[in-house]
Amino acid sequence: MIKDFKFEDFNNPYQEFKRTELGEKLAKLQRRVKDLNIPVLIIVDGWESSGKGYVIKDLIRELDPRTSRVQLFEHPTDEEKARPFLWRFWKRTPKRGNIAIYDRSFYFKVMNDLKIKDEELERDIKDISSIEKQLFDDHMIIIKFFLHQKEKTMGERIEILLNDEHRSFFITERDLNQKNEYEKYLHHFDHILKMSSFSYSPWHIISSEDFKSASKYALGLAIDLIEEGIERCLGGGKNTVSHWRGDIPQGKIIGNIDLSLGVDEGTYEVELKKLQEEAQGIAYKFYTEQIPCIIVFEGMDAAGKGGAIQRLTRLMDPRGLEVIPISAPDETERNHHYLWRFYRNFPPRRRIAIFDRSWYGRVLVERIEGFASAEEWNRAYEEINQMEKHLHNFGTLMLKFLICIDKDEQLIRFQDRENEADKLYKITDEDWRNREKWDQYLTAFDEMLLKTNTNYAPWIIVEGNNKKYARLKVLKNFVEHGKRIINQKYN
Amino acid sequence: MIKDFKFEDFNNPYQEFKRTELGEKLAKLQRRVKDLNIPVLIIVDGWESSGKGYVIKDLIRELDPRTSRVQLFEHPTDEEKARPFLWRFWKRTPKRGNIAIYDRSFYFKVMNDLKIKDEELERDIKDISSIEKQLFDDHMIIIKFFLHQKEKTMGERIEILLNDEHRSFFITERDLNQKNEYEKYLHHFDHILKMSSFSYSPWHIISSEDFKSASKYALGLAIDLIEEGIERCLGGGKNTVSHWRGDIPQGKIIGNIDLSLGVDEGTYEVELKKLQEEAQGIAYKFYTEQIPCIIVFEGMDAAGKGGAIQRLTRLMDPRGLEVIPISAPDETERNHHYLWRFYRNFPPRRRIAIFDRSWYGRVLVERIEGFASAEEWNRAYEEINQMEKHLHNFGTLMLKFLICIDKDEQLIRFQDRENEADKLYKITDEDWRNREKWDQYLTAFDEMLLKTNTNYAPWIIVEGNNKKYARLKVLKNFVEHGKRIINQKYN
Repeated sequence: MIKDFKFEDFNNPYQEFKRTELGEKLAKLQRRVKDLNIPVLIIVDGWESSGKGYVIKDLIRELDPRTSRVQLFEHPTDEEKARPFLWRFWKRTPKRGNIAIYDRSFYFKVMNDLKIKDEELERDIKDISSIEKQLFDDHMIIIKFFLHQKEKTMGERIEILLNDEHRSFFITERDLNQKNEYEKYLHHFDHILKMSSFSYSPWHIISSEDFKSASKYALGLAIDLIEEGIERCLGGGKNTVSHWRGDIPQGKIIGNIDLSLGVDEGTYEVELKKLQEEAQGIAYKFYTEQIPCIIVFEGMDAAGKGGAIQRLTRLMDPRGLEVIPISAPDETERNHHYLWRFYRNFPPRRRIAIFDRSWYGRVLVERIEGFASAEEWNRAYEEINQMEKHLHNFGTLMLKFLICIDKDEQLIRFQDRENEADKLYKITDEDWRNREKWDQYLTAFDEMLLKTNTNYAPWIIVEGNNKKYARLKVLKNFVEHGKRIINQKYN
Repeated sequence: MIKDFKFEDFNNPYQEFKRTELGEKLAKLQRRVKDLNIPVLIIVDGWESSGKGYVIKDLIRELDPRTSRVQLFEHPTDEEKARPFLWRFWKRTPKRGNIAIYDRSFYFKVMNDLKIKDEELERDIKDISSIEKQLFDDHMIIIKFFLHQKEKTMGERIEILLNDEHRSFFITERDLNQKNEYEKYLHHFDHILKMSSFSYSPWHIISSEDFKSASKYALGLAIDLIEEGIERCLGGGKNTVSHWRGDIPQGKIIGNIDLSLGVDEGTYEVELKKLQEEAQGIAYKFYTEQIPCIIVFEGMDAAGKGGAIQRLTRLMDPRGLEVIPISAPDETERNHHYLWRFYRNFPPRRRIAIFDRSWYGRVLVERIEGFASAEEWNRAYEEINQMEKHLHNFGTLMLKFLICIDKDEQLIRFQDRENEADKLYKITDEDWRNREKWDQYLTAFDEMLLKTNTNYAPWIIVEGNNKKYARLKVLKNFVEHGKRIINQKYN
C-alpha cells in the first residue's frame, strides 16, 4: 500500500477546485445525510507531522457543528484502559445523520507499537474489522484516509515545528521515533494497512507532500465516497448479506428440557447460604484480581430472572456490581447501532455487570415484533459472537443464563401477579401479548442457542419451573466458572 | 455534630422492624417517586470501615434496578481531574423518577484532606452547597447519612478485616490514617459536617456501632425523608423561592447600543488576518498551559453568531476546540436538571468549548415560551452565577458574547435567507414566531445582562448590524482576554 507508493505518480483529480468550494459541497452533503439519517465516519490517520490537523481543519470548516464532531484518539484514559479495546470507539461513533471525524482511531494502538506480536496484531485487526463491518452493515459510511509523506519531508517538517514557538509542543517522542526509524515504520504501516483494507472500508492513501493538495484530495474523495455511500444505503441491495441459514426445528432444544427438576426445602436453605457465601468470596476475588465479569439473563416473561439475580447477588458488595435492566431503547439509543447502548454499560475490570435481558433482544423480541428486518437479525448472531469474543479476549468472564418455564407455569405466575396488589406492577398487557407468541419465541430461543453457544461464551440453560432449583443452578454455575477463571489467573 | 455525639443516647426508632420489611416499604416508595417523576439522591458517607457497604446493600436490596443505581466516588479518574470538581457529580445525578445511592460523594475530597486550607475548604463547601441547593430547588430529594463509630470499634473492625482473606484489600492507608489520628479526623469531620448541614440537605448522623441497627436506621429514615420530600414536591409552596426583583425597564441596555458601528473593507481584511493569527497562537498556549476556555454566544436569531464563530476559529486547530450548538433538550436531557447537559459538555483543561446558545436559554427562550416557570427562571440567574464562579475558580477563561442587531436588520437577513436556496435551511417558522416576541426578548436580554454580568464572567456586548465589525470585536476580545489569562499564569 505505502511501501510501493509512488509519490511522483500521485495524481490529484481535485487539484483544480478551491478548498472552500469543496468544503461547501461537503456541507451540502452533510445536510443530505442528515435528512437521510445516515451516519458518516471519516478516519484521518497517517505519519506524525503529516498534516492530519491541517486536513481535518479543511474537512470541518464549512460543516454545521450541530451534526459534526472531531474526535481525538491518542493514548487511552484510565477509564478506557479498564475496558476492552473497542469500548472507547463505540462510545463515540456518530449517531445517525451525523458526521464524525476521527483524528487517528482504532489503529493508533497497533500502528504505534513496532514490537507488537503477530498474534496480538491479528486479534486486534480482527476486532477492528468486526466493528467496521458492523457499522457498515448498519448503513454507516466509513472513510479511511492515511496521510503518507517522504522521509525527507518528514524530517523538514519536524525541524520547522521544533523552531515554531507556538507549535513545538506538537513534536513528541513518537515523531522522532518515526523519523529515526522511517524504514521500519514504513514496513509496519504498510503491513497494517494491507491487513485492514477491507472491501467495506478500504484505506485511501493520500500524499501529503503538499498540505493544500492533500486537503483537496481528502475533501474531494470524501464527497465522492459519501455520494457513493448514499447510493448504497438507498439502493439497499448492494450490502453483503449473510443469508438465512435454513429453518430451525421449533422447540428442538427448549422442548427437551426436563422442567420437573426440583429441590427440597431443607437442601435449598443449606445450599443457598453456602453458595451465596462462595459467590461473595468470588466477587471479592474478581475485585482484587481485576477480573471483569458480564452475566446475561434471558428467558420468558415471569421465568424468574429478577428473583435469580437477587439471590445471586444477595451477599455481594453492591459497589462491585451493577444490575442493568434492558427495556426498549430510548431516543438517543435508537439513533445508534443496536450494540452501542450495551457497550456503554460494559463494566471496567474488577466489576460485575448483570444484564437483565440484553443484546439478545435483537434476535428475540426485535425479530418477533419486526423491529429488526430479517437481514438485520440474521446478521446479529455473528455480530454478537464477535462482540463476546472481544470481551472474552479482554479477560471478561461471560456467563449467559437462559431460564425456561413452560406455558402452564407462566399462566400460573401471571395470574399470581395480577392477584397480588404488590406484584401488580410487574405485569402488563405486553406480557399477555408476548404470551400469544409463545411458539415464535421458542423458535427464536432455539436458533439463538444454536448460533451463539460458543466456547468463549456458552449458554447455560436453567430449568425454571421450580424457582428454587433455578436459583441454585445459577449460583452453582457462577461459583464454578468464577473459580475456574480465578484459577486460570494463578496458573 | 459528631464531636458531641453520645453513642449511648443514640435511639433507633426503627429497631423493632425487620430489614426486609423496611426494604419493601422503600421499594414501594421507589415506585411512587417513579410515578411522580421525582429524583432521589441518598449519600452514604462516614468513617472508613464504618459499614457503608453494609448499609448500602440493605438500602438497595429490594429496589428495582431499573430505576436505582449505586454510584462510587473515591479518587477521581484522569478524565475527572481535567475538569472542575463538580463535573463528576453532575454527570451522575439521578434522572427524574430514579434513586441514586452515592457511596461517598462530593465530600470525599475535603474529608480526606486533613491539611486542607480554610479558604479552599470554604470554596469547596460553597460549591457543594450550590449544587445541592440547585438540585433541591429542582425537586430532588437529598438525603445525607454519615456513619459514625467509636475509636475502639474502628480499631477492632480494621483488625477483623485485615485477617479476612477475602476482604483484607478493603483496608487502605486511609483506614489506618483515620484510626491512628482518630481525634484529628473527628474534629475535621465535625467541622465539615457543621459547615455543610444546610436546611435543604442536612446531615443525619448514624451510630454504626451495630451494623444491623445502622442499616435499619438508614432504611427507616430514608423512608420518612422520602415521604416528607414527596409532600414538599406535591405541595410546591414550601420551596425557598427567590423572588422576582421588580420590573426591569425594557430595552434600557440593549436599546442604547450604537448599532451604526462599522469598519471599512481594507481595515477589515488586514485586521482579521492579524487577529486570527493571534487567536491561533493563544489557542496553542491554552493547550500548553493547560487552560480550559468556555465561550458563550447569545443573540437574536440571525445576529451572526455562526459567522462570528467561524471567523474566530478559522485558524485554530480543530482538535483543540469544540463548537457545541444548543437547541431544545432531548428526551434524556429533559429528565435532568437543566444545567446537567451543559456540565456534560464542559471542556477538559487545554481545550476551548464554544457554546452556540447556552444555559442562558433558561432566562431567554424558556422564560418567554413558558417552558420554565417564573420561579424557575428567576432562580436561574443565581444558579448560573454559581456555576460560572465554579468554572472560574477552576481556572477556566469564561467569555460571554451577546451579539445584537435591530429589528430592521433582522428582517433583511431573514428575507435574504429565504431567497437563497443554500441558506434556506437556516430559516424556519420558529424564527418568524420569535420575531413577533422581539420586545419580550429585549426585556429578557436586559435582565440577563443586569443579573449575570459578574467580574468573573462578564458579558461582552457586540454591535452586530455590521457583520464585519462584530467579527473583529469578538476576535479582539478573545485575544485580549486570552493574553490576560496567559500572563496571569506567568506571574
